[in-house]
Amino acid sequence: MYKPKEECGVFGIFNNEDAGRLAYLGLYALQHRGQESAGIVSSDSDRLHQVRGMGYVSEIFSHDELSRLPGRAAIGHVRYSTAGSVSLREAQPFLVDGYRGQIALCHNGNLPYASDVRGQLELDGAIFSSTSDTEVVLHKIARSREVDLVGAIIDTFTEIEGAYSMLFLTRDRLIAVRDPRGFRPLCLGKLGDSYVVASETCAFDLIEATYLRDVEPGEIVVIDSEGLHSSFPWAKEKAALCIFEHVYFSRPDSLVFGRSVNKSRHKMGRQLAREYPADADIVVPVPDSGVSAAIGYASESGLKFRFGLVRNHYVGRTFIEPKQSIRHFGVKIKLNPVRDLIEGQRVVLIDDSIVRGTTSKKIVQMVRNAGAREVHVRISCPPTIAPCFYGVDTPTRDELIASNLTVEEIARFIGADSLGYLSLEGLLRACEDPLGNRHCTACYTNNYPIPVTSAARTKTEREEGLFSRESFWPRI
Amino acid sequence: MYKPKEECGVFGIFNNEDAGRLAYLGLYALQHRGQESAGIVSSDSDRLHQVRGMGYVSEIFSHDELSRLPGRAAIGHVRYSTAGSVSLREAQPFLVDGYRGQIALCHNGNLPYASDVRGQLELDGAIFSSTSDTEVVLHKIARSREVDLVGAIIDTFTEIEGAYSMLFLTRDRLIAVRDPRGFRPLCLGKLGDSYVVASETCAFDLIEATYLRDVEPGEIVVIDSEGLHSSFPWAKEKAALCIFEHVYFSRPDSLVFGRSVNKSRHKMGRQLAREYPADADIVVPVPDSGVSAAIGYASESGLKFRFGLVRNHYVGRTFIEPKQSIRHFGVKIKLNPVRDLIEGQRVVLIDDSIVRGTTSKKIVQMVRNAGAREVHVRISCPPTIAPCFYGVDTPTRDELIASNLTVEEIARFIGADSLGYLSLEGLLRACEDPLGNRHCTACYTNNYPIPVTSAARTKTEREEGLFSRESFWPRI
Amino acid sequence: MYKPKEECGVFGIFNNEDAGRLAYLGLYALQHRGQESAGIVSSDSDRLHQVRGMGYVSEIFSHDELSRLPGRAAIGHVRYSTAGSVSLREAQPFLVDGYRGQIALCHNGNLPYASDVRGQLELDGAIFSSTSDTEVVLHKIARSREVDLVGAIIDTFTEIEGAYSMLFLTRDRLIAVRDPRGFRPLCLGKLGDSYVVASETCAFDLIEATYLRDVEPGEIVVIDSEGLHSSFPWAKEKAALCIFEHVYFSRPDSLVFGRSVNKSRHKMGRQLAREYPADADIVVPVPDSGVSAAIGYASESGLKFRFGLVRNHYVGRTFIEPKQSIRHFGVKIKLNPVRDLIEGQRVVLIDDSIVRGTTSKKIVQMVRNAGAREVHVRISCPPTIAPCFYGVDTPTRDELIASNLTVEEIARFIGADSLGYLSLEGLLRACEDPLGNRHCTACYTNNYPIPVTSAARTKTEREEGLFSRESFWPRI
Amino acid sequence: MYKPKEECGVFGIFNNEDAGRLAYLGLYALQHRGQESAGIVSSDSDRLHQVRGMGYVSEIFSHDELSRLPGRAAIGHVRYSTAGSVSLREAQPFLVDGYRGQIALCHNGNLPYASDVRGQLELDGAIFSSTSDTEVVLHKIARSREVDLVGAIIDTFTEIEGAYSMLFLTRDRLIAVRDPRGFRPLCLGKLGDSYVVASETCAFDLIEATYLRDVEPGEIVVIDSEGLHSSFPWAKEKAALCIFEHVYFSRPDSLVFGRSVNKSRHKMGRQLAREYPADADIVVPVPDSGVSAAIGYASESGLKFRFGLVRNHYVGRTFIEPKQSIRHFGVKIKLNPVRDLIEGQRVVLIDDSIVRGTTSKKIVQMVRNAGAREVHVRISCPPTIAPCFYGVDTPTRDELIASNLTVEEIARFIGADSLGYLSLEGLLRACEDPLGNRHCTACYTNNYPIPVTSAARTKTEREEGLFSRESFWPRI
Repeated sequence: MYKPKEECGVFGIFNNEDAGRLAYLGLYALQHRGQESAGIVSSDSDRLHQVRGMGYVSEIFSHDELSRLPGRAAIGHVRYSTAGSVSLREAQPFLVDGYRGQIALCHNGNLPYASDVRGQLELDGAIFSSTSDTEVVLHKIARSREVDLVGAIIDTFTEIEGAYSMLFLTRDRLIAVRDPRGFRPLCLGKLGDSYVVASETCAFDLIEATYLRDVEPGEIVVIDSEGLHSSFPWAKEKAALCIFEHVYFSRPDSLVFGRSVNKSRHKMGRQLAREYPADADIVVPVPDSGVSAAIGYASESGLKFRFGLVRNHYVGRTFIEPKQSIRHFGVKIKLNPVRDLIEGQRVVLIDDSIVRGTTSKKIVQMVRNAGAREVHVRISCPPTIAPCFYGVDTPTRDELIASNLTVEEIARFIGADSLGYLSLEGLLRACEDPLGNRHCTACYTNNYPIPVTSAARTKTEREEGLFSRESFWPRI
Repeated sequence: MYKPKEECGVFGIFNNEDAGRLAYLGLYALQHRGQESAGIVSSDSDRLHQVRGMGYVSEIFSHDELSRLPGRAAIGHVRYSTAGSVSLREAQPFLVDGYRGQIALCHNGNLPYASDVRGQLELDGAIFSSTSDTEVVLHKIARSREVDLVGAIIDTFTEIEGAYSMLFLTRDRLIAVRDPRGFRPLCLGKLGDSYVVASETCAFDLIEATYLRDVEPGEIVVIDSEGLHSSFPWAKEKAALCIFEHVYFSRPDSLVFGRSVNKSRHKMGRQLAREYPADADIVVPVPDSGVSAAIGYASESGLKFRFGLVRNHYVGRTFIEPKQSIRHFGVKIKLNPVRDLIEGQRVVLIDDSIVRGTTSKKIVQMVRNAGAREVHVRISCPPTIAPCFYGVDTPTRDELIASNLTVEEIARFIGADSLGYLSLEGLLRACEDPLGNRHCTACYTNNYPIPVTSAARTKTEREEGLFSRESFWPRI
Repeated sequence: MYKPKEECGVFGIFNNEDAGRLAYLGLYALQHRGQESAGIVSSDSDRLHQVRGMGYVSEIFSHDELSRLPGRAAIGHVRYSTAGSVSLREAQPFLVDGYRGQIALCHNGNLPYASDVRGQLELDGAIFSSTSDTEVVLHKIARSREVDLVGAIIDTFTEIEGAYSMLFLTRDRLIAVRDPRGFRPLCLGKLGDSYVVASETCAFDLIEATYLRDVEPGEIVVIDSEGLHSSFPWAKEKAALCIFEHVYFSRPDSLVFGRSVNKSRHKMGRQLAREYPADADIVVPVPDSGVSAAIGYASESGLKFRFGLVRNHYVGRTFIEPKQSIRHFGVKIKLNPVRDLIEGQRVVLIDDSIVRGTTSKKIVQMVRNAGAREVHVRISCPPTIAPCFYGVDTPTRDELIASNLTVEEIARFIGADSLGYLSLEGLLRACEDPLGNRHCTACYTNNYPIPVTSAARTKTEREEGLFSRESFWPRI
Repeated sequence: MYKPKEECGVFGIFNNEDAGRLAYLGLYALQHRGQESAGIVSSDSDRLHQVRGMGYVSEIFSHDELSRLPGRAAIGHVRYSTAGSVSLREAQPFLVDGYRGQIALCHNGNLPYASDVRGQLELDGAIFSSTSDTEVVLHKIARSREVDLVGAIIDTFTEIEGAYSMLFLTRDRLIAVRDPRGFRPLCLGKLGDSYVVASETCAFDLIEATYLRDVEPGEIVVIDSEGLHSSFPWAKEKAALCIFEHVYFSRPDSLVFGRSVNKSRHKMGRQLAREYPADADIVVPVPDSGVSAAIGYASESGLKFRFGLVRNHYVGRTFIEPKQSIRHFGVKIKLNPVRDLIEGQRVVLIDDSIVRGTTSKKIVQMVRNAGAREVHVRISCPPTIAPCFYGVDTPTRDELIASNLTVEEIARFIGADSLGYLSLEGLLRACEDPLGNRHCTACYTNNYPIPVTSAARTKTEREEGLFSRESFWPRI
């Protein structure tokens, strides 16, 4: 069962005496990108040291663990596994040894063709310790004829297309790589004499690093004792930045693709209000990701913004259910309505997506139970009709409600009085890409930046069917 | 070192086959009232069973632990220790054995005179296993001449005044007690054939119990196999409901003292806007407790509401600091500004209190660093000038900035362009108690509902000096 | 359920900068006296500090835990709970606060009348946090009119008879007390300028302390900054040293009651060979406690000593059983026969006691399965016919096989070809007390040094019935 | 740092519904062969499942962990790491995926030329996740042109010589392999309809399996749903069974190489008494491994056997040292003399080896301090003069005291009145191999069954220099 898909966050730092601990802080700030496992590899200039664990960053890294990460360079990873078999074996960074010496690697993205390459490699005698597409990269690099690691990386990704924001660490180098389409973000910053890289700028804010610029699509950045070296070895491709980072995945206080996530969401909300106004009293976000859009919607519509759903922030990763049935328990443990705000009101509920529809249905019901007279659901992006092959875990087409039902049918299914999705044009405009030249919108359009063979698609979708039903909804 | 003060939450359930697990869920919903330790005692009608632990509810109670809590009745407690010596010995519910059989007890509140009583008891041969004022109650009850437990409770609290919302569990009874002034909240609900009690109604919402009414000030509610029995054994006192529950401590989705917390906070914000308008662009809450008031302020003022500070929700109880200095690290790990929203703006920052002023100073600075042109701080209650003796952990007068500086001086200290505190009248009106007949406002007025002897006051304040400086600020 | 019985070990040290850590080492050496929980309380001259935990000493005390035990004095305790409800609440040393300040206490022994006193205390308003008889002592001391702690201790034990080797620790004193009959051992030693006390001298050996003498029956030893003060405040009683310490409980390398345990056991074995010779080939001990007697038996009889049963030393406290039945699994996980030695041989099996007979039966069967032609069981003490009320956990009379069956019947039950028990005279002679003036032999004679009322006996036996069946057999 | 050496134990079972749990029991019985990490891989006929951990078997496997090992086949491993960097990455069984599907592997032995092969593999693009020689095997197998796994195994070990008792598990087969010289033991047994394999028969005894025969040197045993298939694919070699298994490493109750370990040791002791009699009073073993030989020595010499050194069985893996110096602390925590037995005696101390001499020196001193008049040390094997390359961790030649000093000099170094080593002839006779045709005795003779190139030797010895000094002495 080869499960390549994951959403993750990466962080790296070079030339800092506190490298391991700053990596830990960086992962802390990126925790929303993956809560299932985390790891750090550091280099003491002679050898690499690895600590990986299951759970939250705050649970994995104690003083003891951090003391096992000496040296002035480190890379780290948080992972949200989308596959059924969650295991420490899959936790990154991976650390392997070969003829170029020790190499650590962590990856945000997905390599949709990796399973084909893996098959080839297996026939050629390669053995795998994980189910990850990332391990394929390590094998390809090890087998490259290019002597230098950078050459081998170039070699490898000339052959394997896909979405990858990747960090490599060796004894003496930190290498950051981003695929030519730039699907996933990767930011470059400076902290005193140290260079830092991270999936989002919120990691820089915490450690007081300064954002310099993005690692560009197609760029390889090599950081060593001489400084920073940049190259663009691959053929240029049309940019395909993942628009869902702005819709849902990134933190609102981050810059992603050089642009404020909060601003994008706010504009999505405004645009949504223009496209789908509602004859209602109050605008209520589904926290936390719906907040910025809801404020935008309220601003534009003139309706009152109200925090009508309160989130319980103490929910751990595991939760013991009561024996007796509690309706909508999974939603209830995380959200509670403020009856005082909702009772008797006509509510516009702002959310960032509807995937299977089951969670939305529970939330609508919860709001009705709290006394809402009407519930108008507004979604800050278009209907999700196609699975992602570039690093976001989405269910198969069969399970995507918008792939199977009309908007009216969905409204009926989730029990909403009305339902409106932001148009693709509106979304692109909110992200300041009115012509859609820069973003990947495949999940809304079914137009994939890299052609997906029907074989690969079928295969991936079949595998996706094994995913747990609620896996897409990690943070509610 | 007798440290009586604590903020806590309590939960109880009687006549439910899933009592232990529902208690666990109830504490889950009350986690914000205490994150340092938690415990549950259940009764299997023959014996009582206890599980206590340090940390979050989700960390303490596994399937194994819950299976050690059999029976159809249970009480539970979350605790935020305010004393230096945090220890499992202090975790509640306490469970003791005596001539009336086993009794478990948990307590939200404070008994300011308990230290005197404790001294008496010690002279009389009592031995103590904790430093808690709650243990004094157990001794007094054990020594009461009243044969029945309820009689002994009445006896005890005829002698010891203070703030107490308390739950007792015996083999066959659950007893809920609230002091005649009703300092701390205590709610009564129903779940099928079971009775439930909790500090706040959000615990009922999670388990789908229905709120019936409050346990009234001065009421003893006894729940046994016969049903519910109510009595009001003590002399009636003027109500002194803790207004700070509405300002800060409770969850906005709760009913506290029969009234929506969110509504109170919203009105505080509106009133604050009337009393202290600001020539500004945006209203930004300090999350999470400042959100409702900020929405109220924005509504009233017509200024734009913006979520300009984002909270990191993955912060665990312990956090490993970097070796190198990071400015305002403690605040930074929990809050991050959204530069896009703040840059170039004149910001009204809404918070619920200023205690020592040091945290406020860091937040103001953080907002300025994010590019705010002006920062106008507005506080949704009056200046805190006097310590609480009834269950809220406040530092000594010497450390309360508003007890020592004028509002102008505070503004200068925290670096705000202007500073406004909600007036006492405004606060009372927001809580629909315009004449101040129902609430305790001692922390703002220095008028204590129970006269505090100067000796006691000095003693308590001296002890308070031992508190950790940041202890008041548990949730930012 | 008031379960007073336990076998335990105690250790104390005064005036040593490494007190906490040496207490830990002392408990390490005494681990065989109790494997269920352990604890240490230290004094930093101002306050007492407590660490307790479930499990082995090596599991409970990490560097972190030991760092929480500052100061120059400490007492510690290992406990083997005999009661069904094992719990941290019962772990010693207890630490309480009262008008004399903080007092810590740990106890090896049993107070058979404590349950009566406890009843009185409860009627008088005392509350208990454990089921231990030890807590009764703390209450009596707290209620004593004697101002000084030593006076209160004298007071208390003038009233409460029983078996107690006890250590008290206060801010500035370590007090060691042994009951007038001296049931349980207690040794006094010196380590540089420090005094040490321990249940057995093996604890002194490890830390290189020198054995000075025993704390005598009826003696109170007070150690403070002035040195050591001894007194004998109670009426002298006939000594009643527990002979089972020499038979089974203590380590062979210890001096107990001033006499080598190994020497006693060796002589028991020799005497047993004289009393019950066997026409056999080899002598095999049931390890570890049967080894010394087996060597004695072999020496005297001229038969060959063979290590025919090997013990698995890696058995932890919990063990997961296979789903499928394995015959005699409980014994098998701990013992394995050496077929090469046993096959075809006539075996004399030396053990130190037969309690219920079920374990002996399994061992005999195991030896037969390994090919023994004959199995002759020899026990290095007389038949156990009466329960102990002084600190050794024995089952009720009903469950003691020797209380219900003749030696021939027991032999048949356990499947032995012959069975011989050492005579009482032989046992006493082996312990160099030929007239039986110094030892308690109640478990073999039913003659109790302190008269046991039939009520108390019935009560205790009834409670004993709740004990787990295998509890007596902690180390095989 | 490529550290190939290890002492380990393996266990496997096929066709049993309780496979995972029986593997756990098997490892339990083999715990003495490795205490640093352990692991089990099971097959549910579809996929393989892995659990590995650091520490004792009893610490790693809880009910939860065992429930994660479904299926009717399993292999397990205990490991005693000899390398500095102990890590979960090195714990076996390894589990990898390749074109033949999932393969798990565990290994007892050592492949001295694996580092050369590894270098070749790395040049050929292989990447390694551990430093183990075992991983080399997995790579070679994956790269073999033989389609079937068994063919690939044959291929691999045609190229790589060394010491290997190895278990492979796939979806549907358990394969046991032993090198043609048979360095390390491997036993085959039956449990109902299930086949079992284990390093020693003590693992069979615990689960009540019957010993059938050894997996023979050079044999491959394949167990699948059809039953057991045996083959001998490699050229026959002269047997080289590790004689140190009988001297020290195995449990005395095991059959190893089809012969009772206890019998060998007993005969070693007898022979030693003939070769090196002593004018002494008592024979004392260094427990536990010296016991059988000491009994033999006593039998032959007519001297008295006495258990003069008692072992502390509660020593965990980590131990916190006292701040103050305690002489010979490391030995003291594990052994304590019985003064009563030793005082005034002339002692013959029986041990199984002297490696660096430092531990022996401490024990001799301890025995003297306990009052011995004379200490005559007798070792039940010849002087260890050469390192092992076949799976026993020995230090480099420079550190082997017998490689550098004469017997007289060693006697002086360890402080013995006399010292005698069993002759090689005596040892071989005790193992019933008088001509030395069947055993490897390289550590005593420097004659290696497989020629060791001086390059390899130098390399290995250099690496060995990194070993911790006490690593050879795992069980005292």
